[in-house]
Formats: sequence, structure tokens, C-alpha cells
Amino acid sequence: MRWLGVEHMVRLIDRVGLGPLLLGLVDRLEGDFRRWERFERAPRVASHSRDGVIELMPTSDGTRYGFKFVNGHPRNTARGLPTVTAFGVLADVATGRPVLLSEMTLATALRTAATSALAARHLARADARTMAIVGLGAQSEFQAVAFEAVLGIRRLRIHDVDPDATAKFVANLAGRGFEVVVARNVGEAVEGADVVTTVTADKRRATVLADNHVGAGVHLNAVGGDCPGKTELQKEILARADVFVELTEQTRIEGEIQQMAADFPVTELWRVITGLSPGRTRGDQITVFDSVGFALEDFAALAHVAELAEATGCFGEIDLIAAPADPRDLFGLLGGAAGRRAEASA
Amino acid sequence: MRWLGVEHMVRLIDRVGLGPLLLGLVDRLEGDFRRWERFERAPRVASHSRDGVIELMPTSDGTRYGFKFVNGHPRNTARGLPTVTAFGVLADVATGRPVLLSEMTLATALRTAATSALAARHLARADARTMAIVGLGAQSEFQAVAFEAVLGIRRLRIHDVDPDATAKFVANLAGRGFEVVVARNVGEAVEGADVVTTVTADKRRATVLADNHVGAGVHLNAVGGDCPGKTELQKEILARADVFVELTEQTRIEGEIQQMAADFPVTELWRVITGLSPGRTRGDQITVFDSVGFALEDFAALAHVAELAEATGCFGEIDLIAAPADPRDLFGLLGGAAGRRAEASA
Repeated sequence: MRWLGVEHMVRLIDRVGLGPLLLGLVDRLEGDFRRWERFERAPRVASHSRDGVIELMPTSDGTRYGFKFVNGHPRNTARGLPTVTAFGVLADVATGRPVLLSEMTLATALRTAATSALAARHLARADARTMAIVGLGAQSEFQAVAFEAVLGIRRLRIHDVDPDATAKFVANLAGRGFEVVVARNVGEAVEGADVVTTVTADKRRATVLADNHVGAGVHLNAVGGDCPGKTELQKEILARADVFVELTEQTRIEGEIQQMAADFPVTELWRVITGLSPGRTRGDQITVFDSVGFALEDFAALAHVAELAEATGCFGEIDLIAAPADPRDLFGLLGGAAGRRAEASA
Repeated sequence: MRWLGVEHMVRLIDRVGLGPLLLGLVDRLEGDFRRWERFERAPRVASHSRDGVIELMPTSDGTRYGFKFVNGHPRNTARGLPTVTAFGVLADVATGRPVLLSEMTLATALRTAATSALAARHLARADARTMAIVGLGAQSEFQAVAFEAVLGIRRLRIHDVDPDATAKFVANLAGRGFEVVVARNVGEAVEGADVVTTVTADKRRATVLADNHVGAGVHLNAVGGDCPGKTELQKEILARADVFVELTEQTRIEGEIQQMAADFPVTELWRVITGLSPGRTRGDQITVFDSVGFALEDFAALAHVAELAEATGCFGEIDLIAAPADPRDLFGLLGGAAGRRAEASA
């Protein structure tokens, strides 16, 4: 069975180039959102504990099956561990055989940024040239590179309460052709921005973006509010915007719209992509992509990196799946070891 | 992250010895069944397709979390592929970090045999010396070795409709001190047997064991009937036996008792092990362990092989989990590659 570790993934990204990879992933995501109704949309299986949650997120398109293991443990930071780690598996539906085991910490960062860029492709104004990014944590640079690759946005106005995070962001994107303005506060960051990305790590109901921060025609890419009790937008923004989501029932629990009534109108992104629902209809409209992350996106990411691994040779092999010559002779696998031992002592 | 592939597992079994390993696993299973109520007993998450099913089976004891990926594809045999393959992961509940990735085709064979032996330890007559095995497929030799290790049963009376399977069984267990009688039919196999293990691969309602095959005092270890539509015992046997199960609601769907009314009385094995319910109370009683396999057993198997891997050094390391020095600087992992590239071209 093939596997793609962190080192393989870093090499793969280096070989393909992050921008081209994200652009390719956006196109694949668009194709998968287009055939949305063919996907099995099983709920996540969550195991909650005092310190966090471990989830399995499976899905299938009838040909391939994928699942992601992901944990969320906010207190890990104090232990010097990442709060979220993930890996995933792709399997063949017809035979049940796993075909790829992949790291998914980087892959999740890629698919989250690619999904944001895909939504913006359909919802932001076509003439959008400037993006504000509020929150400069682990996801922020991926967002910037994805929007550059997909929408050609090179002007960034960035803000984080932590100057170290800001310095990290600036250093990481140096030499990539961005024009970066470091803003002293959120109000300054959103000035003149066509797209506003909020991606803070605050684990509670925060008002990262207030109603007066959002002017006409802006597309909001709300990435950070992604679990129950964690939101970033003042609810008045949502009330005067058109809100787009991945899977409605999931977003009502995890997204920004957890602040709104259960019948608050939203549109699923796949409907915009397939032309069933309108996306942006006016230049002065405020659009919000209320991103929480969905199994289909992990599936697309796994399928995409599987293809790129094949093309670049960036993968390893592990014998995780026993394959006895005669399926009824599993025990015979052990004989091999016994045989070698006898040989060794002969 | 540690991983245990098929080769690691074969070496580990070779180093520890299959009998001692199974005996140790039975003791661990007994301990885990004893604290049954501390386990999260989430349902399996199944993805059904035309040719089979892919399942995720998670559980947790509050300290560790484990899940198994397993497929069941009956038509795979025609393609030269195993019908069932499996792997599993053990993670730390407090931090969500995966700690072991393991092959679980062999590990599942081990835990199935160990669970059968554990049940027989509590349900078979103490003077049981002879076991009949009907069905000599992939699980059969593991059953034999487990019963030898745990109950000292060395006399085997075996039968399979396929002479090749019989020859395989005899060859695989040669030199292990068993006294094996090859029976021409099921009736001959069960003659004088104290324990009868049915473990055929027939994927339908079959009568592998008829009512007149089962005499007083026998313990039936019914392993093969383990999914909807697949049973091995004539229902009259169940009617005059005391039936023991892993998890009642699961066994009513998957086990032999799917043939019986929804209120057919059964006893959960953990209740016998903890002393809450009687097991065998009379020498002439017929007991049935209606085995279907349960997530707790996979969990125990993962925990056990993790410990043995540690002790024997039979494991590898893979970088499946990204661990950036600064968790907020995931993007920095990519800089490493860029850095090296610059270095290489310098």
C-alpha cells in the first residue's frame, strides 16, 4: 500500500509548486462539488473527551472511499503539541482495498485554502484585487497563496494581535510577489479590501469582525469559526449578507450561522457551482462563505495528492495489508517466519 | 508515529510465540471485558456498496482511543484478493495523537481466536479435552492454537468440504503437538467433542451444525455466522442452549441469534466474566458463544501488540503526523524544502 508522509508531501508540494497545486485542487474540488449528490454524506463520528475530540470523517463517491482521522485538542499548545493533527486513507470501493495512506495536516491546510478560493471564485467580485487577512496562524499563508493562484489577488492587508505571528507570515511569503500591508488593527486591515478572510484561532465567540468593518461589495471568507461555541463575525454582518455554506445542517452547528435562527436562509455552495442557485448577483452585495470543512473536501484532497504522488514519485510503500497467496491460508504467513528461523539456525 | 506492518507482526509473533501471545491477549481481553462499562461503545460506521462494505469501528476506554478499518468483499476471492483486510490505529485520548498504526488482518485473527478461547475459559466444561473444528479456512488454525494455549485442548477432530483446506490445516499445525483426526463429515467430527467450533466461510444461512450433532455438555464456539444473512447453526440448537454474546444489539443483527425472536434470552459475556451472571452451571448444559467480533476486542488487540512491539522492537516509524516546531507555522515546513532546494542549487 502506498503512503504519503509529511516529508513526501513537502517534496511533492516543492516539485509541483504550491500555487499550481492549489489551483489544480480548486479545479478538482469544483468538479467534486458539481457531483455533490453522488457523494455519501455520512456524519462525522466523534469521540469527545475532557481535553478534546477525535473524529473520523468518511465519505465515498461510489468508486472511491476516503476517510480522515482528525483530532482537536485546544490544550495541546501548552504541551508543545499541535491542537489539530490528521491523516487519511483512500480505498477502492469495488474491492475494499486501501490504496493510499496520507498525512493530512498539510493536506487539510491545502483543501481548506482551496475551498475558500473556490467559493471566492464564485462569490467575490470579478475585479477583486485586495484581500484582508485577520488572524495569521497556521492556515493564513495557504489562504494567501490560494487566492493569488485562483483569483490573482496579490495585495494583502494583514492583522494579528500577536506581532510574532505577523512576522512569521511576512517571512513565509517573502519573495512570492505579494504586496503586504501590516495593519495595526482590524479596521485598518479591512480598509479598501475586496475580500476579507477571518482565520483566527480564538476558541470562543469572538467579534473579530464588527458590523462597521464590512462595506458594500465585500466577500467575507470566514474560516476561523468552525466549531460549536467558536465564531468570528458579529451577527449583524450575517443579517445583511448572503451566506453560503458547505453542508447546511453541519454549518448550523459549527459555523458562523450558529449565531442565527435555525431557519436563517443560506445557500449551499454546490448549488451555486452547478447553477441551481445564484451566487453573487450585484456588485454591492455582501457575500459570506461560512467555511467549516467537509468530508468531500478531504476526499478531493486525498484523490488529488494520490494523483500527484503517482506523477512525482513522492510516496513510499508499507505492508499494512496482509495479502497471503491463498486468502484461506493466513496462518501460512507465520510459517514464513518459522521457516526463516529454521534456516538461520541450520 | 510507530507502525506495525505485516512483516513486523510476523516477526513479533515469531519472537513472542503464537501460543504465549494468544494467552497474554486472552488475559488482556478478560481485563478489558471486566471494565466493559468504561468503554465507549459507538456503532460501526458502514459504507455499503454493490460488492461489499467498508467499516470504521471506533472505541475508547477514556485513556486510549482505537479504531479499525475493515472491509468485507465476498467477490474478492474471484479476483485473487482477500475478502477481508484490516488495519487499525491507537491514539492517546488526552492529546489526540495517534501512537500506533497497525496491520490488523493478522491482529483480527488473533483477537477472534483469543475471544473464543476467553469465552470457552468461562463456558466450556473444565475437563474439556477434545475440540471439533468445522470449517478450515483462515481463522481455523488460530482457534486451535488459542484453545491449546488457554484450555490445554490438544485433540482436534476437523472437517471441511474442501480437502485442500484440510491439508493446509494439517500442514500448518504439524509439529505443534496436536493430535488431529480428519473427519469425513460433520457428524464424525463432533463425535466425542467437548467443544465444537464452527468457522465456515459460507455467506448464507447454512446448516453447518444440525440439532442432532450437539450432545449434552458441549460448548459451541460459533465463529462463522457473523453478518446479516450468514448463520451456521440450526436454530433448534439455540433453543435448547444457553447463548452468550458480546454486545446483544449487535449480535441480534449479525450473529446466529438473528434466527431467533428479538426477545430470545442471551447473556453478555462481560457479565459472566465480572460475576454478574452465571456462565456454565451444569455439566450437561449446552453453551453457545455466538461470536461476531466487537470493537473492544480490536482495541485490546491493538493495545496488546503495541506493548509487544515495544518489548520486541518489532515496529517501524513513519512521519504521518506533521509536527512543526511552532504549531502556528505549518507553512514553515514547506520552507524547509525551499531552503534545501536553494542549498542544492547553490
